[in-house]
This record gives sequence, C-alpha cells and structure tokens, in this order.
Amino acid sequence: MIYLDNAATTWPKPLPVVRAMDEALRRYGANPGRGGHSMGLAASQEVYRCRETAARLFHLSDPSGVIFTLNCTMALNMVLKGLLRTGGRAVVSSLEHNAVMRPLNALSTSGPIYDVARVAEGDDDATVEAFRRCIRPSTRVIVCTHASNVFGTRLPIRRLGQLAREYGLPFVVDAAQTGGVLPIDMEEDNIHFLCLAGHKGLYGPMGTGMLLCRGSYWLPPFIEGGTGSRSLELVQPSDLPDRLESGTPNTPGICGLRAGMELVLSRSPQRIARQESALMCRLYRRVKEVPRIRLYTGMPELERSAPVLSLNVEGYGSEKTAALLNRQGIAVRAGLHCAPCAHQHYGTLPGGTVRFAPSLFTTEAEIDRVGDVLEQLAKNSEKSLQS
Amino acid sequence: MIYLDNAATTWPKPLPVVRAMDEALRRYGANPGRGGHSMGLAASQEVYRCRETAARLFHLSDPSGVIFTLNCTMALNMVLKGLLRTGGRAVVSSLEHNAVMRPLNALSTSGPIYDVARVAEGDDDATVEAFRRCIRPSTRVIVCTHASNVFGTRLPIRRLGQLAREYGLPFVVDAAQTGGVLPIDMEEDNIHFLCLAGHKGLYGPMGTGMLLCRGSYWLPPFIEGGTGSRSLELVQPSDLPDRLESGTPNTPGICGLRAGMELVLSRSPQRIARQESALMCRLYRRVKEVPRIRLYTGMPELERSAPVLSLNVEGYGSEKTAALLNRQGIAVRAGLHCAPCAHQHYGTLPGGTVRFAPSLFTTEAEIDRVGDVLEQLAKNSEKSLQS
Repeated sequence: MIYLDNAATTWPKPLPVVRAMDEALRRYGANPGRGGHSMGLAASQEVYRCRETAARLFHLSDPSGVIFTLNCTMALNMVLKGLLRTGGRAVVSSLEHNAVMRPLNALSTSGPIYDVARVAEGDDDATVEAFRRCIRPSTRVIVCTHASNVFGTRLPIRRLGQLAREYGLPFVVDAAQTGGVLPIDMEEDNIHFLCLAGHKGLYGPMGTGMLLCRGSYWLPPFIEGGTGSRSLELVQPSDLPDRLESGTPNTPGICGLRAGMELVLSRSPQRIARQESALMCRLYRRVKEVPRIRLYTGMPELERSAPVLSLNVEGYGSEKTAALLNRQGIAVRAGLHCAPCAHQHYGTLPGGTVRFAPSLFTTEAEIDRVGDVLEQLAKNSEKSLQS
Repeated sequence: MIYLDNAATTWPKPLPVVRAMDEALRRYGANPGRGGHSMGLAASQEVYRCRETAARLFHLSDPSGVIFTLNCTMALNMVLKGLLRTGGRAVVSSLEHNAVMRPLNALSTSGPIYDVARVAEGDDDATVEAFRRCIRPSTRVIVCTHASNVFGTRLPIRRLGQLAREYGLPFVVDAAQTGGVLPIDMEEDNIHFLCLAGHKGLYGPMGTGMLLCRGSYWLPPFIEGGTGSRSLELVQPSDLPDRLESGTPNTPGICGLRAGMELVLSRSPQRIARQESALMCRLYRRVKEVPRIRLYTGMPELERSAPVLSLNVEGYGSEKTAALLNRQGIAVRAGLHCAPCAHQHYGTLPGGTVRFAPSLFTTEAEIDRVGDVLEQLAKNSEKSLQS
C-alpha cells in the first residue's frame, strides 16, 4: 500500500506513538487530576508533559494554555462560538474548511456574519490587502487556515498576525494541515488561538486535537462539567486549562500525541517540510507534462505551499480516479475534502479533486510509482473516451 | 495494587480492548467515511460496528442514533444545551454530578433554571412523587443520574421514564456510572437520550463517550464541521449521526470501546452487577461494626444501589485516608467526586468521602484485604487522636 492520504490522517503511526498509547492503557488507571493514588498522579504528569511538549513546539510560553479536544473541529468551534457569542463579525479566507465555515454559518442567524478575503496565490501583499479590506468596525476576529487542506496554498500568517495586531483583533489560525509540518511560532506570528489536529502532521492518534490559547482574549467555557478542581462550586473554574476542559480526558490519546510531537521535534518541522515538499514537487514535475492530467496550482514549493497536491485526470471524476488508484494499491482521497469554498476558489466544483499528501515516511520510489500509475490512468481515460 | 477506583475509570482494561486499539492504530489509516480507499472503508465499518454493539447493549433500534463523544460530560452538554436552547426548565435529582449541574448553572443566566427532586433512598414512590412535584408548565426535560457516582444510590429510572411519558417530556439519563453494570433498556425505560462514559463499566479507553438518541426529540448540532457528507453545503447535515458528529472521530478509541462492550455483552450486565454488588456488600458487612468507620448508606444491595461504597474514617479527612490506603497499595478516590449536590444530600460537605468501586476483575481476597487495612486505619486514627 502506498499511503498518500496523510492530509486526512497520517499512517502508519510511528512505533513510539503506538507504544506510548499501549503503555498508557496498561499503566494509567484513574482520571488525571482526580485520583487519590499513585496511578492518578502518574496520569496527570503524563498529560502535563504533553502540554509542555505542545507549548515548546508552537512557542507558547504557558503550557496551561494547551487545551485538549476531540479534534481540530471542536477547537475551532470553541474559539469561534466563544469570541462571537455576543455578536460581531469574522474575517476569513477564501480557502477555509467546513470546520470554520459551518460554525460561522450556524452563527449567521440573520445573514452571513463573515467577510471572505480572497487569497492571491503567490502574492502575499494582495492577500493581506484583501483581508484588510474586509475589516469593519463590527469585526471581532480574523480567522484563517494556515494552508489549504485541498490545494496546499499557504497563507502569510505572520503578516496576517501583524494585521490583527494593528487592528487590535484576536487572530485564530486553523493549523490542522500544517502543525508539525510548517513552522509555527505563536509569539512571533501573533497567534492568539491555534487550532490543531493531533493525528495529522503531529503523528498522534485520531481522537486528539488541541486548542492553544495565548494572551488575554477570554474564551468562555464550551463544555461545563467535572474538572477535579473547585468541585464544590457549580460555576466552571476560571483558570486554564480547567475552564475549557471538562470530564475525563483522552489520556491514552494524549500520551500518543506527545510521543508524536516529540518525534516531530527531534526531526524538526523545517526538515520534515523540506523533505515532504521535495516529494510533492517531484510528483508535480512528473505529471505536469502528462496529457489529460489537470493541475490547479503552481509548483508546490515550500514558500507558497504546504506539501499537498490536488489534480484530476480528465474524463474521470475524482472519485473514480481514487478508486482506480486504490486498485493499484495507492491510497488517496477524492471529492471536496470538506472544503467547498476552496473548490469554489479554484473552480473545481462540484467534482472536487484527487489529493496527494505525503508523510515523513513517504519515499521517492513511492512517488515515482504514483507518477507512473497516473500516466497510465490518463492514457486509459483517453481510450475509454474514444471507445 | 488493589484497584478500587473503577468508578473513575476501569483498570486494568481487558486485553481484547488493548488489542483492538493497537490493531486500529496499525491498520486503519484514513478518516472513517472520508477516504477513497480500502483502509478508509475498513475504518468506517469498524466505527459502524461499534454503533451496532452499543444499540444492542442498550436496546436502541436504530444504530444511527449512537453518537460518539469525547466523554459523558460532552454528551450531557449536547443534550441539555440543545433541549434548553430556547428556554425552559429542567427537573433534576438531588444526586447529580457536576456534568449535569454545571451546564444547567451556565444556562441559568437569571436565576436557576432547574428544580431539584430529593431522592428518597429505598423509597421509589417518594422519589417519583418528588420528581412529579417539580414539574411545572415551563419544564422542558427530566434529567437524572441512573445512580449516584458517590453513594451508589439508584434512581427508579423506569418509573421516571413513565412519568416523563405522562407529561410528554424528554427523559435524559446520565448513565456514566451504570452503563455496562446495571441493565438499561432505552425502549422499556422510555429513555430519549442516554449519556454514557466509554471508559468505566463499558471497559473502553478514556477519551470515549456516547450519546444515544431515541425518538423524535430534535437536538441541534453542537459542533459544526466536516462530516464527509453533503460537503458542498455550509449547513450541517440533518441526519444522524452526522448532525451531531463533526471532524475526525476517535477511531482507535471507538474500536477499543466496541471490544469492551462485546466483553460486557458476553458476560451480561446482570451477572456483572451481581458479582460487583456482592463484593460491595461484603466490604460493607466487614467494616459495618468497625468503630470509627462511618458509613452513609444502607447495605449496597443491587435493588437500591450501584456497586459503589462511600465511607470515612473518623479523625482523618477523606484525602488522608486515601493517601494512607495508597501507601498500602490500595487505589481509591477521595473528596467530592465532582458531585457536591450528592454530598449536600448526604451531609458529607465539605470533606467528602472515600469511594470504593470494583470492576469485574476485583476479587473477594482483595476486598478482604481492604477490610483489614481499613480496620487498622481506624485503630490508628484513634491512637493519633489520643496522642
């Protein structure tokens, strides 16, 4: 199996991740922070170590601001609904995932409460200006994806962070696709809320996500319940992380996530990004001149793209191409990838695209094999058209 | 280690649970319902199998009504905030956990929106009448714990389900402590929303919870985002489970949970309950006559109690007793157990209690050892008082 569906979830998971989860399952009974015994304390320490690892990786000074969630979608809902609970508007990019657009749409009870800034691929000045033009007096937050989950297109988050600072607005980044791959520095990039998936570039298990909170913008509790702290009070505790974490956490998942982040730190996201980007550029060059293969972006070089490539084989729907690739032992994802806005931007509605995404385990030989199979598919699609 | 903190999370996890998670981590790349390849399909099937197992265990006719959550707290928040979003009041018992009370308190922006029915231990008629007296024209839901997580006290859920039917109200049960231990039949008990922890009596891993939905009461989406379905639409899909599940699910956790539930089904909750109840009655009898051990309930027989026992050693705070037990290799939980209302009911504020909870792996020999250690502690507490 050549697995290039790593933008959905990375596979395989590194052995230290599998082992950390196994150990957590076998060793840590008791809820972290709640037991009156040694195993409960051990579980608490493991969970806190994961907060520290995340804080180190994303340059957040206070690990208490690391909130564990079910997935990145939950983190985005917590931020958007929290910041916009009393009204106001959001500025978003034209490449957002449904995890941003659907919550905003749900908040739009009488007309859209968001303004869409069109991303100009390869022209950061134009992109930043598009965002600036969207800011109104009622704007309460700037939120954007770090890179399109479909086309890889990167957004200039550091400059958008500066823009947010200029207008005194909180800046929210959806880094589901880029955490662990592209460097992110919450301090330097002026990110107030960083939303992450644990099971993609951080190599943790599915079922883990994070919301990293920096600075003084206040998020109300999203889910109230037991925290093991101030149990006597019916009001949710106000300190982080307890204000935003209720009930039993996903201890084994968190232990696996920490092992994944430690792997990323040991290899450095910069090196991972260069390696994966080289693979996507290799695939791009390989299929660029192949007749009947349709590309939608420029070369996915690191400066302007996360290591993801979308394409189509003319004559086949994206789902059909993915099914044919699957028959050849190549795993990819087809369709809209839960991001209709990005497809609208690139004119790939309603059929969507076939998406290729490597991990740090992907090899050049695998990419070359995928190139060969794609070329053959393109030839066959022509024949099937003629017959 | 004698582990009696199973009401926080069961430990050890059965080997089939550990294995199922390991297999899921190693075998199932791709988000369930989203991949265009074989592994994605396999993951979807595994997740669906878990819905079917849960539906079978709790007598829910349509497995699509099984919603996976991070924990039981999240499930309770989804129900309470969904049903009361447009106002109205809740009737609750006097034994609720903070996972019920804190969300209700958060909804109480101008005075409490809940009425508390006092549970009469061992007198179901009085308990049902207390609930009936709390029902007002503005009541929108009846919600109660199946059994106190601190004292074990059972609520007559079948009769409360009948009461809900009589008044045309939805009936919500918090079965965090009882799922997999006491029999629950959503149909017969007239439960519309059953909230469950996956990592207690169902023997799944921490990080899993479920909300089982039955009947026609409508819950709005709680977290909007990608579902892999109807991706073109910015409105959350209306069908279950997609309406209430967004983003990547906890696939390995769900696979582990299924293995746990299959174990429970193979042993039958009735048998598990009898076995655990016998152990708690054994402990009760052992310490009942020990001077300076304070009990708060009657004998924890199955008809009136879940298999949980709370006590205190006079002269020691509950935390101290737990710490001393820990030194003897006995793991229990002390304090308020996130349920101040239950402690208020039993007069154990602010110090709380020491809680003992067995699992199906607990033995009589372990219980006898705990009895001996408790007796010794009680003696020592007297000496430390005299010295």
